[in-house]
Amino acid sequence: MRKPIIGVMGAGDSANQIDVERARQVGKLIAENEWVLLSGGRNVGVMEAVNKGAKEANGLTVGILPKATNEQTSEYVDIPILTGIGGARNNINVLSSDVIIAIGMGAGTASEIALALKAKKKVILLNDNEASKTFFKRLGNELIFVVNTPAETIQTVKSLL
Amino acid sequence: MRKPIIGVMGAGDSANQIDVERARQVGKLIAENEWVLLSGGRNVGVMEAVNKGAKEANGLTVGILPKATNEQTSEYVDIPILTGIGGARNNINVLSSDVIIAIGMGAGTASEIALALKAKKKVILLNDNEASKTFFKRLGNELIFVVNTPAETIQTVKSLL
Amino acid sequence: MRKPIIGVMGAGDSANQIDVERARQVGKLIAENEWVLLSGGRNVGVMEAVNKGAKEANGLTVGILPKATNEQTSEYVDIPILTGIGGARNNINVLSSDVIIAIGMGAGTASEIALALKAKKKVILLNDNEASKTFFKRLGNELIFVVNTPAETIQTVKSLL
Amino acid sequence: MRKPIIGVMGAGDSANQIDVERARQVGKLIAENEWVLLSGGRNVGVMEAVNKGAKEANGLTVGILPKATNEQTSEYVDIPILTGIGGARNNINVLSSDVIIAIGMGAGTASEIALALKAKKKVILLNDNEASKTFFKRLGNELIFVVNTPAETIQTVKSLL
Repeated sequence: MRKPIIGVMGAGDSANQIDVERARQVGKLIAENEWVLLSGGRNVGVMEAVNKGAKEANGLTVGILPKATNEQTSEYVDIPILTGIGGARNNINVLSSDVIIAIGMGAGTASEIALALKAKKKVILLNDNEASKTFFKRLGNELIFVVNTPAETIQTVKSLL
Repeated sequence: MRKPIIGVMGAGDSANQIDVERARQVGKLIAENEWVLLSGGRNVGVMEAVNKGAKEANGLTVGILPKATNEQTSEYVDIPILTGIGGARNNINVLSSDVIIAIGMGAGTASEIALALKAKKKVILLNDNEASKTFFKRLGNELIFVVNTPAETIQTVKSLL
Repeated sequence: MRKPIIGVMGAGDSANQIDVERARQVGKLIAENEWVLLSGGRNVGVMEAVNKGAKEANGLTVGILPKATNEQTSEYVDIPILTGIGGARNNINVLSSDVIIAIGMGAGTASEIALALKAKKKVILLNDNEASKTFFKRLGNELIFVVNTPAETIQTVKSLL
Repeated sequence: MRKPIIGVMGAGDSANQIDVERARQVGKLIAENEWVLLSGGRNVGVMEAVNKGAKEANGLTVGILPKATNEQTSEYVDIPILTGIGGARNNINVLSSDVIIAIGMGAGTASEIALALKAKKKVILLNDNEASKTFFKRLGNELIFVVNTPAETIQTVKSLL
């Protein structure tokens, strides 16, 4: 049996401190549940934090990088997949994840949620913004799950696996 | 001097009749302005309609297809680019367009708007839904232009080229 | 009826003068036959020359670029498709072409011939190197056509369309 | 420190028995050296065999799949990356590998060797065919290493890491 792969999506440079801290906690909890963490793999923002959190609990971390080299790869990524396909790699992130968690919001994250819905994947939104929740609830209906804390996020993952 | 490439994004099977009719009109106006039309190229919904409209005015039409073969290609596409990369081709659609027009809303269209904003491209929304407008206005700020008719869409394209 | 799309593959910076001159002639002949030229679209080597040749005869030229911007695009490309997917775009080049012509040889060109064979596409080799011809003849069998001049190249395209 | 990622490329359905047996041995040796195995991930030929071999020695196996779903994924792949980009994923295989081993020859494998050379990656050929060796030696020069056995393959990997 393969271990579940949990994809965590979120902003890079534009991530705020709340999202970064939540990402670290979510990463740690993913590792404690012995799931594999998959992310965009860069060394900034939510991507860096979630990988760091997972390694604090000795998790296995996979990063799907936009570049063809490791110059932007988080040091907490065990397995960097160097796609060289830029933003098009966002679709690989969602296809490869059993469940997707989106922390915060930005253009890249929004594209990943939308691509996930297109692929009929379930998406958990850990997010305080009402416009985001309203929009994606309407777009994705029964595929969208809104949560408020890292603990609730992990409970929801468990219910979906 | 290259002719401008105007990308029109919109739903396939899930497109409603208003969006399809608007797409036909937008396609015709793009051709009348001697711009090149770029779209997702499939033979359904907004994609089919916008290419049909453009060919009514003898335009040049380029389709960026998800599949590796022409089984889903609109007969109104002059130049089918068969990417074989599925939904990842949405990023090529927006990178290759000088200006992007999004007609209606769906998961694929939302991903294209978001990827366009990520790439700092200007996006014109021809759309009646308030949640969509609110969300993308907040996400994209000065890159998002909201319009209400095909004629207004084309006026906005002219102002942005 | 769509016009045939003829893909011409060949080296960039490493192209030699014979290949560049052949590419210019092949491009001109493609345009004179009213076929659409598709290439890798960059402003160097075989790519630049084939597009230049096609425009000398008022052809229509499509370039499938590796980058997300036009910094490397040949000025002779009418329709630049900015993929942003780097070398992975080589597969789009071959999938989108009705017939593929490979002029000269290099790592990129070899990858395109191999990907074309994988997709069961016909490939015309305009090439003086025996090791290349032997290898690809063995790999591709009835899909590989070896020619010696631009005129013979075009005759072979005609026989394959 | 990340563990080295060793990419093993080879045919699917068209693989012969010698290549399949060599692949199983190479996979086992990769795992015994505690390197991560990366492959095309499908459940046939060299791909299936190399992953099976690695799991016999409790290795960690990553598969870069062409499809968007797991229908073709080898049961011996721990981490399936579902790209949905078809043959374009061959470029991700080589970019993500620290060293590439090609076992046998076919159109897909040839494209991967060529893309690896394009990306300046080192490639070890475990292959009995003279035309293949001659062609790629000429194309890749100091990036190509020809070997005759699984044991020699692994010795060469060690010398290159």
